[in-house]
Amino acid sequence: MKYYLAIDLGGTNVRVAVVSPQGDVVEEIKRPSRASEGPTIVLDNIIDMAQSLKLLSDCLAIGMGLPGPVDTKKGCITLSTNLNGFTGFPVAAYLKERLNLPVYMDNDANVAGLAEAVFGAGKGNDVVYYLTHSTGIGGALVVNGKVVSGRKGYAGEIGNIIIDRDRASYAHINNLKVGAVENEASGSAMVRKAKQELDDSIVSAGEIFKLAEEGNDKAQHLLDEMTLDMGMLLQAIAHVCDPDIFVMGGGVTKSKDKYWPQMIAHYSDLVHDDMRDTPFVQAELAEPGIIGAAALCMAMEKGN
Amino acid sequence: MKYYLAIDLGGTNVRVAVVSPQGDVVEEIKRPSRASEGPTIVLDNIIDMAQSLKLLSDCLAIGMGLPGPVDTKKGCITLSTNLNGFTGFPVAAYLKERLNLPVYMDNDANVAGLAEAVFGAGKGNDVVYYLTHSTGIGGALVVNGKVVSGRKGYAGEIGNIIIDRDRASYAHINNLKVGAVENEASGSAMVRKAKQELDDSIVSAGEIFKLAEEGNDKAQHLLDEMTLDMGMLLQAIAHVCDPDIFVMGGGVTKSKDKYWPQMIAHYSDLVHDDMRDTPFVQAELAEPGIIGAAALCMAMEKGN
Repeated sequence: MKYYLAIDLGGTNVRVAVVSPQGDVVEEIKRPSRASEGPTIVLDNIIDMAQSLKLLSDCLAIGMGLPGPVDTKKGCITLSTNLNGFTGFPVAAYLKERLNLPVYMDNDANVAGLAEAVFGAGKGNDVVYYLTHSTGIGGALVVNGKVVSGRKGYAGEIGNIIIDRDRASYAHINNLKVGAVENEASGSAMVRKAKQELDDSIVSAGEIFKLAEEGNDKAQHLLDEMTLDMGMLLQAIAHVCDPDIFVMGGGVTKSKDKYWPQMIAHYSDLVHDDMRDTPFVQAELAEPGIIGAAALCMAMEKGN
Repeated sequence: MKYYLAIDLGGTNVRVAVVSPQGDVVEEIKRPSRASEGPTIVLDNIIDMAQSLKLLSDCLAIGMGLPGPVDTKKGCITLSTNLNGFTGFPVAAYLKERLNLPVYMDNDANVAGLAEAVFGAGKGNDVVYYLTHSTGIGGALVVNGKVVSGRKGYAGEIGNIIIDRDRASYAHINNLKVGAVENEASGSAMVRKAKQELDDSIVSAGEIFKLAEEGNDKAQHLLDEMTLDMGMLLQAIAHVCDPDIFVMGGGVTKSKDKYWPQMIAHYSDLVHDDMRDTPFVQAELAEPGIIGAAALCMAMEKGN
C-alpha cells in the first residue's frame, strides 16, 4: 500500500499523519508547534514526529500546509507572521534532505480548499472556488484537482480585494488596502463595526446575527452592508474563474442560514444572468488541513 | 507529421487553417463567415473550407474559437450576439459528425489568451493572465497551458467586474452591471466620456491620449480615472490567481506608453508588496485566433 505523509503546521499545533490515496487518515500525531522557537526547532520536532510513525517507510511523498503565502516553487513561506523566522526559510529542502522524500507545500487556505475540492463538498467539480469567511477572508482556486498558487503564492489572498474604494483606512491595524473586503466583511470587521455602532461589549459575529434576528435595525444594517460587500467579492471572483461551485467554510459560515440567502441574492444581482445559479455549499471536512496536505502530493503526482 | 485543424470564426470572417505542433500555420483559407445566415450555413461553409485543405487528412483534432461565452463541455455558445442562431446550437457535435475528428472549442478571448500563453508573450510561464483592452474588456486565465473556462464559459468575462459601485447606469446600452469596468475604462467608455466632457467629435481613445499629451486637463483627468479603474480590475484579478505575467492586447494597448506606467503604478499601490513586480507585457502574435485554436487541441491532448 502506498501512503502520503501529511503535515498541518499551524501557529499553535502541528499534526503529522499518514493518509491513504482514498483520503483516509490511518495514523496521526499532534504536538504543540513551538512556533516561536525558530524553523530548525519547529522542523526537527516535525521530523521526530514523522519518524515515530509506523507507516513512514510506506510514504511516497510529503505534503504540507503552512500559514502565510507560500512560494510553492522555492518551497518556503514568502511572508510569515505566525511562525517566527520562517520567512524565506527553505522548509521543503530541509524536510526533503532529512526524510528523503519529495516535499510539496502550500498555504493552509489553499490546502484546505484542495481537500474540499478533491474529497469534500466540491468533489466531482472541475473548477472549485473555496472561500474561508472567518476572522479573516481567504480563498483558493482549485482547477482539475490542483491548486492555482500563482507567482509568489498570493493567489487566494482575496481578503485584499477592494470592494469599495471609498472606505476608511485601517493601515494602523493591518497592511490591507483601503476598502479591502477583509476589513469590511470579515468576522473581525463585523465585530469592529458592531463595537462602534451597536455595543462595545460585542465580541463575535454570532451576537450580531442574533441582534438582527431580534429586530435590531443597526445590526440588520451591518448585515445588509456585509452581504453586499461579500456579493461584490464573489462577483469579482466569479468573473475571473466562473467556478462550478463555491465552497465556503470558516467560523462566520456557522451562521450561514442567517446571511447566505441575502449574500447570494446580491451575488446574483451583480453577475451575468447565466451565472446566477452557481451553487454555494458549506465546507464539510473535519480535518481539511491533513487531507489537503496529502491531496497536494496526489495532485503533483498527476503532473501538469 | 501530425497537424491540427484550426478554425477562427468571427462575426465578419472565418479562417480555417492547418497548424503544426510547433504553432506554425502551414495552410490557410479565409472567407466571409455569413454570420447572419444561421448555424448550418455557417458551419457547412467551414466544412467545405476544411475539405479543400490538402493536409486535412493529417489533422488529429479540430480547435475552434468563437465569439461569446462558450460552454466547453457541451460544445456550444451560451449566449451568441454576433452569430445569428448560435445560442445553444451543438457546434462541436455538428463538426465532429461531418469531419470525424474530436472538436475543442472556446471563446475567442480565451483562445487568443491561450495562444499568447503557449506561443506568444506569455510563453514559459505557469499562470498567464491575458487581457484585451479594446472596444470592450475581456480576459483569459491560462494555467499550465490550459484555459480555465469555468462552469458556463464565463471565466474571463472580466468586463463585468465592478470597480466602483457608485457610477452611472448604462442599462440602456448593454447588460453590464453598474460600475462594471468595461463601461468605465474600455476604449468605447473613454470615447463616450470624452464626447460628453471634451468634444463631441472624438471617435477614438487615441485622440484622448493625444489631447492629454498636449496638456488638456480634461483629457488628462479621463486618463487618470481610466488608469485607476484598470488598476482596480488588475488588483482583483491578481488576488484571485497571482499570475506569473499579465499579457495585454487590444486596440487601446497600441498607446501603451501613454497609460501603462500610470496604470501599473495604480496596480502596485493596490496589491500586497510582493505582488508589485508582476510583469506586464504586450501581446505579440499576429494571428492569435488561429494559433490559439490549434493550442486548444494540444492542451486537451495533454489531459487533465
